Formats: sequence, structure tokens, C-alpha cells
Amino acid sequence: MSYNRGEKILNANSINEYMKKCKYEVRGEIYMAAMQRTKEGKEVIYTNVGNPHGLGQQPLTFGRQVMALLMAPFLLDHPNIGNMFPSDAIERAKIYLQHVKGGVGAYSDSKGNPYIRQEIADFITRQSGQPSDPNNIFIGNGASEVARMVLFAMIRDQYDGIMVPIPQYPLYSASIALYGGELVPYYLDEENGWAMDINELQRSLNEARSKGINVRSLVFINPGNPTGQCLTEDNLRDLISFCYDNRLVLCADEVYQENIYSGKPFISSRKVLGSMPEPYKSGLELVSFHTVSKGAHGECGFRGGYMELHNMDPAVVEELYKVASINLCPNVPGQVAVGLMVNPPKPGDVSYPQYKREKDDVIDSLRRRARLITDAFNSLEGVVCQETEGALYSFPKITLPSAFLQAAKSKGKQPDVLYCLELLNETGLSCVPGSGFQQAPDTFHFRTTILPQESRFQDIINRFTSFHKGFMKRYGSSGPKSRL
Amino acid sequence: MSYNRGEKILNANSINEYMKKCKYEVRGEIYMAAMQRTKEGKEVIYTNVGNPHGLGQQPLTFGRQVMALLMAPFLLDHPNIGNMFPSDAIERAKIYLQHVKGGVGAYSDSKGNPYIRQEIADFITRQSGQPSDPNNIFIGNGASEVARMVLFAMIRDQYDGIMVPIPQYPLYSASIALYGGELVPYYLDEENGWAMDINELQRSLNEARSKGINVRSLVFINPGNPTGQCLTEDNLRDLISFCYDNRLVLCADEVYQENIYSGKPFISSRKVLGSMPEPYKSGLELVSFHTVSKGAHGECGFRGGYMELHNMDPAVVEELYKVASINLCPNVPGQVAVGLMVNPPKPGDVSYPQYKREKDDVIDSLRRRARLITDAFNSLEGVVCQETEGALYSFPKITLPSAFLQAAKSKGKQPDVLYCLELLNETGLSCVPGSGFQQAPDTFHFRTTILPQESRFQDIINRFTSFHKGFMKRYGSSGPKSRL
Repeated sequence: MSYNRGEKILNANSINEYMKKCKYEVRGEIYMAAMQRTKEGKEVIYTNVGNPHGLGQQPLTFGRQVMALLMAPFLLDHPNIGNMFPSDAIERAKIYLQHVKGGVGAYSDSKGNPYIRQEIADFITRQSGQPSDPNNIFIGNGASEVARMVLFAMIRDQYDGIMVPIPQYPLYSASIALYGGELVPYYLDEENGWAMDINELQRSLNEARSKGINVRSLVFINPGNPTGQCLTEDNLRDLISFCYDNRLVLCADEVYQENIYSGKPFISSRKVLGSMPEPYKSGLELVSFHTVSKGAHGECGFRGGYMELHNMDPAVVEELYKVASINLCPNVPGQVAVGLMVNPPKPGDVSYPQYKREKDDVIDSLRRRARLITDAFNSLEGVVCQETEGALYSFPKITLPSAFLQAAKSKGKQPDVLYCLELLNETGLSCVPGSGFQQAPDTFHFRTTILPQESRFQDIINRFTSFHKGFMKRYGSSGPKSRL
Repeated sequence: MSYNRGEKILNANSINEYMKKCKYEVRGEIYMAAMQRTKEGKEVIYTNVGNPHGLGQQPLTFGRQVMALLMAPFLLDHPNIGNMFPSDAIERAKIYLQHVKGGVGAYSDSKGNPYIRQEIADFITRQSGQPSDPNNIFIGNGASEVARMVLFAMIRDQYDGIMVPIPQYPLYSASIALYGGELVPYYLDEENGWAMDINELQRSLNEARSKGINVRSLVFINPGNPTGQCLTEDNLRDLISFCYDNRLVLCADEVYQENIYSGKPFISSRKVLGSMPEPYKSGLELVSFHTVSKGAHGECGFRGGYMELHNMDPAVVEELYKVASINLCPNVPGQVAVGLMVNPPKPGDVSYPQYKREKDDVIDSLRRRARLITDAFNSLEGVVCQETEGALYSFPKITLPSAFLQAAKSKGKQPDVLYCLELLNETGLSCVPGSGFQQAPDTFHFRTTILPQESRFQDIINRFTSFHKGFMKRYGSSGPKSRL
């Protein structure tokens, strides 16, 4: 045979080519460098990923009380239990134990526990005013897992395309690359607060179709990641019409729906669709995603998320069910975490006041931090930052001096990557370069979360400010010519 | 455009073809029929899937105590805590809280928490006498998830093949189909206690290669699923030599390693490899899997499992790391469950006696049930059942009367599927037809778990016995001619 005896069977050249091609920069070069710093005992502030608890956000008490009782149901028989847990947490744990057969240690149905899926359906109905069928809800190990399942279903070959906003969350670019499809980019309008422009959608679609791409679906993220904008009801109507008229499945990534700061509300795609006339209302194939990882819960570690399939062919729901069953079921503690998020304590419940206070505290504090960081960025030379209306990120545009662009070129690095590396080395701040999300040609950005705790926030802003001023001094101010 | 306006964009004909093709019968037709019965208020005993807690197995107390404290760390400050939790559970929870940054609600590293991966590496070293590097360990949402990740990496196109034992656990057939590769079957020798025969491996490999298949890897399951056999050290040496000599990655599915009943021990592939000379010892690319879902823990709902990559190209480890990062991380409670399994209470610890007793009780009871069910099957006309040396299943061969084969044919159903349907309808027992695992041509089997609690076991055996006797009466005994 023609192989080199010392060569591994599996090596970088002999694995699946799509695996090689895909990129995931949220945990890419900068994250690896940050891990290395941590190993060396140097300080790192991980603002690369929306991981609230990782940066000190405390879990909401009620949910964790219920969860503790589900982990150790024998506590329910302990005579002291009433001193340690509020009555409604005990009650809720008993309800779950009744409906989660075998408890959290047993496999559930592959779509997720039916009782919890009913809780989700009820939540969707309260939010949208529209009926929701639990049979069309799939709980996953995070929303990422179910989103990838749908992308897998839609991508048949390299001619199938998915429209994705640029900048985008790299779950989409990475998964589309992994499944061998084509990412069809549409650009958000940065100067206009990252607005979505229907003309740009049409341009993008036309261009892809002219290249022979079968565009099958459009993804949007509301509130935006990394861009932080909230879509208006008009935006959503336009999107729905555009997708229906152009035969696209609409994928609505609504995982940041609780993270709202500017007074502009989150409006669910399901609600807007329900208010539209036929043929849209019963015609648009809509998949929407939500998670327990973001919002006031921020329980990323539980990997609990879901999707609702709406107006979807039942045969497709069955096929997805089959594929979900290969992994048996999503983790059950994560399912319960989702249930607790969509069906929290209500006014009048013993735990309601504490729940409400904790939840408001989280969101109010994030609102203040969003304001602080946007203002800080905008006060600096060469930095322009759109308002963070929602989500967990700030995504400033940086105008890089031409001397720095030269330096990056000579080092063979993308300028925004090099900027983030210098930032990390000098300050310990671990951000994600804009290129990891894709960005308009010849623009540079980076993403930072707004998650460091408020007590540390001013220090972080000071570090960044001091770094950036030194950076501009080192490489010289950006004149009109040096702004690529 | 040429589409029918009323046609869905996504329908059974317009999704990914591999998704359509793949099958997963553990939750297939019989399971669906069982769910329907449950909905109608009829009794179902779900013996289709190895779900111990779903059938009444109780969680081991120590692990759940630690888990409860991790869910609600504020309990650690409660003055009553020492009355409700043993000191070593409190201590262990504190250790995890120190090493799991942000607690169970925070994302971990994408391979899993480093402290827990070190616990796993230490376990592998104790078991095999060989060093293990935590950087080569990936924790997943169950072993299924990481197994699928490796299969994805190995399958480049429809000419890449994976050798899989027949009968097999359909995770493998389903995933290989989903990723567009070729399943290369090798048959286990039923009459010989489902032994693995090296001549059969060679036949299978030759046949595949003669068809132009690039055979890249061989999967084995030890103890076997659905077949229950334990491999000997000689078997394992042969397997290792065979794989190395033929340039195959060896995938060792060892998730049932704690489920051992017959006196034949479980021997880990890592241990045997470590005892072999070069070039095998440092040459064989080995991937081994373990889980918290089986064994004495049986914590399926946590979806905690891991793989260790051994002798693998570091570039491949990096590529897998990148792909793992797209889903951010495996669920953290599941990671902790794995840590608790591989690093349980030790002799001298406060909780050790209870832990040991509970663990032994589970395995001893399963041993009795394995014996009972094998003997019951073997006492029936037309049923032959190999001994369940390990795992959670019994996989009897049934010789079906020719009248029944005719009846199945006229109904357009596979005979084993129809048999299981009749069994379900008459007794409420939900088993999986042998065709779901694949089986030698013209043989018929079904798989049942040995998981129903002992108090119910005799009743279940009685139901089956009475069903099968009635069945044989209805369709007539199997003469030599009617045995296909």
C-alpha cells in the first residue's frame, strides 16, 4: 500500500474536509492565547463569550432550589425540609417529580419531556397570543443543538444556501460549513444602528440565485448578536413577507429576548406572524429558538434550549424526531431549567418577590453596563459603537491606523485579530475579533460581552481606554487615508 | 417558478437525503405504538431502551447529595446543612465549586471541565495501568455525542466505511447513514456466545475493499449491545493487531463496563493495548467511550459521557476541539456526574459503606435478572438465548412458524417487527425487533432490557411466556422447513 508507515490514519489531511474548513472564532486564536495566559498564572477577563455565571452573575434562587430537590428527592422526606426550602419550591419539585418519569436520571422522550414542552407551549401562547402545539417543540442541549439539526435538514449539497446576517453569530457560519452548504451573506446597516434593510436582503438573494444557489432559508438574530439591535414590528413584517414570497424558511434566533435595555421592546416573530393576513399566517415556515443560557437566568452550563417549528410539514417534524432520537434525549436537568424559565413564580407565590427582585437586578445592571461601555467606546478616537439595545455584547468599529495595518500585514495576521491579541497581552481582556463574525469589507470590529460585574466595570473600561490611547499613540492617529 | 404554491419548502422529499435514509429503531415503530398505547391509558412496560431509572432503579445517594449542593450552593451556608448531608458530600461539593468556575450554570471548556477530565484520566490510569492525558479526553452530552463526532470526522464521502458488529447498537448504523458513509458489517458468532471471529473480520474487510470502500475504522462494543457478551483478553489482542495491521482506527464502546454478571471480567482495550509490544502500543489509534448512563449509576438523564483519544494525531484532536466548541460545551451537571462516577467514595470515607452497598445491590440484582430471563427464554419452544454476560439486554433468537412468516409478508411487515407488535398489544411489553440492530440473514431476534425491577420480573416473564405459547399455538410449531 502507498501510505507512509509512520503516518497516522487520521491526520489533518485525512479527516472530513468540511470539518477542516469550518471556523469557530469565539473560541479561536484569541481564546487559545487567553487559555495559555491562564495556564501561566496571568490574569484573563473572559469577555469572549456570553457566559454570565462565568463572570459572577448569580443564579436565580427559586430555580436552583427546585433543581436541588430534583437532584436529591429524598430531601423531601427530611423533617427539616420546610426550614430550608420555600413551600412553592417544594411544591414545584413535587410536580416535576410526578411528570418527569424516573426523575432527572431517566431518559425522556427525544423531543424532551411532554410536561415541560407543554410549559413551553403555554409560554409561547402567552407571549404571542397564538396557539402552540407541544408536538412541534424540540428541547435540545442548548438552542445551538436544535438549530444545527434544522440546518442539517435543510442543507442537501453545496448548492443549498442559507441567508445569514453579517455580522453573525458563528454558530451559523460554522454549522453551514460543516454541513457543506453555502452561507449567503446579507449585511446589516451599521450606520443605521445595524438595521435590516429589505433592499439588501433582495440584493443578497438575487446575487446568490444568479450564482445557482438554492437559497432555502433566512436566519435572523433578534436582539442581534454581536450587534445588539432590536427589530421593530415593521422589520419583522417585512422579513416574514420577504421569506414567504421568496420561498424561504425563516429561522428566528430569539435567544436574547429577555436582554432588553433601550426601551425598544422585544417582539416575537410568532406574535407578528399571528397578526398577519393569509397566506403568510398559515404559510410561512418558521423555526424559532430560545434558551435558558441568556436572559436573567444565564444558565449556560445546563445546555437547555428549544425550538418551535411552526407551519412545518408534519413529515419533516417526524424526520427531525428520528434524528433527535439517535442521541436519545436532551439532558433532563437542562430541560427542567427551561421549564423553570418559561413558567417562573407568579405574583402571589411565596417566592415571587425574591424572584422578581433578582431578575430585575440582573437586567437593570446589564442595562447600566451596556450604557457605560457604549459611551466609553464612543469617547475614544477611532472607535464608533452603535447602541446595545439588547443581547449581551458591544461591537464597536475601530478605525485602525495605516501603520498598524502594515504591521498586521507583515505578521500575516488579520488586523482585528492582531488588535485583540495586543489588547489581551496588555490588559488581560479576551475579546473576539470582528472577523470571527464576518464584517463589511475593509471594516474592523471586535466583540466584548457586557458581562463583567459592575464593581469591576469601571476598571475594565479604564484598562481598555488606556490600552487604546497607547495603541493610537504607538501607531499614529488614523487620517482619512489610513482608514481602509 | 416550478413549485406548487401549496407545497411546503421543507417536506419529506426536500430535506437532506441522508436524514431520510437513516433509521433508529430503538425508538422506531414499536416505540411509537407503545407511546400511542400510553396515550390511550393502556399499560406499557418500556423495555425498549436501557433506561434504568425509568424502570425504577434508584440513583446512588452520594452523587445526588453532591449534585444537590452544586445546584444550590447557598445551602452550604445553612446552619442545618450538617444534619442533612454527610461531611464527605459537603467536602466534595466544595471541591467542585472551587474547580468548576462559575458553578454548574457557567459554560466550561468545550472538551469539558479540566478538573473533571483529570479525574477521568486518573480513572483510566488506575484501570489500565497506563498514563492518560486529560487533553485527549472529551466529555460529551452522553457518549453518543462524542462517538458521533468521531464518526463525522472519519467519514469523508460515500466510499469511507466503518466496520460495525452485527448485531449492533443503531447509534452506529444511524450515524454512519446520516454522515453519508458505508457501514461495513462483520457478524458475531451467535452459536458461540456472540464471539468475535478474526476470520470473519478479515472476510468483511476484504469484501468491502474489493468493492472500493476505504475502510477507516472498526467499532466494537464490549460488553456487547444488544448481545451481552464480554470479550476476552485474547479477543482484544487480536482486534488490536487486526486494526493496526490493516490501518483501522479502533473505536471501543465500553459503556457497559460496570454491567458484568457471569464472572468473566470486563477488560479495557487501553489496558490490553498497554501490555502489547510496539508498534501496536504506540501505533494503534484508539478511541474509547464510557458513560454515566449505564452501570450502577444509570444516570441516563444527565447525558454525561466521554471519549479518550489515544495515539491520535494532535492536529486531529485540535480539529475535534474546534467542532466541539460550536456547541460551546457539554452540559455541566452531566460532567459532574461523570466525575462522581470515576471518582466515587473510597474505603474509609463516611459515605463509602452506603455507596458500596447501593452499587452492589444494583449490579447483583441485574445479575439475578439476567439469569432469570435467559433461563426463561431458553425454556420456550423456538427460542434460544445466549447468556447475558454483561450490559443490560437479552437478545433471544426466535424461530418463527412459517404461517406467521406468511402472515407478516401479507401485511408487508418484517416478521420480527410484527412479532414485537403482537407482543406489545397482548402484554404491554415494548421490545425492539432484531432488525433494528441488523441480524444475520434469515434469523429473527428481539432485544429486551433486563431492567424491570425484580418485584415485577416474574410477572413479566409470565406475560412473555404466556404470549409466546399462545403465539406458537396460533401459528403452529416451527418444523425444520418453516425455520427460514
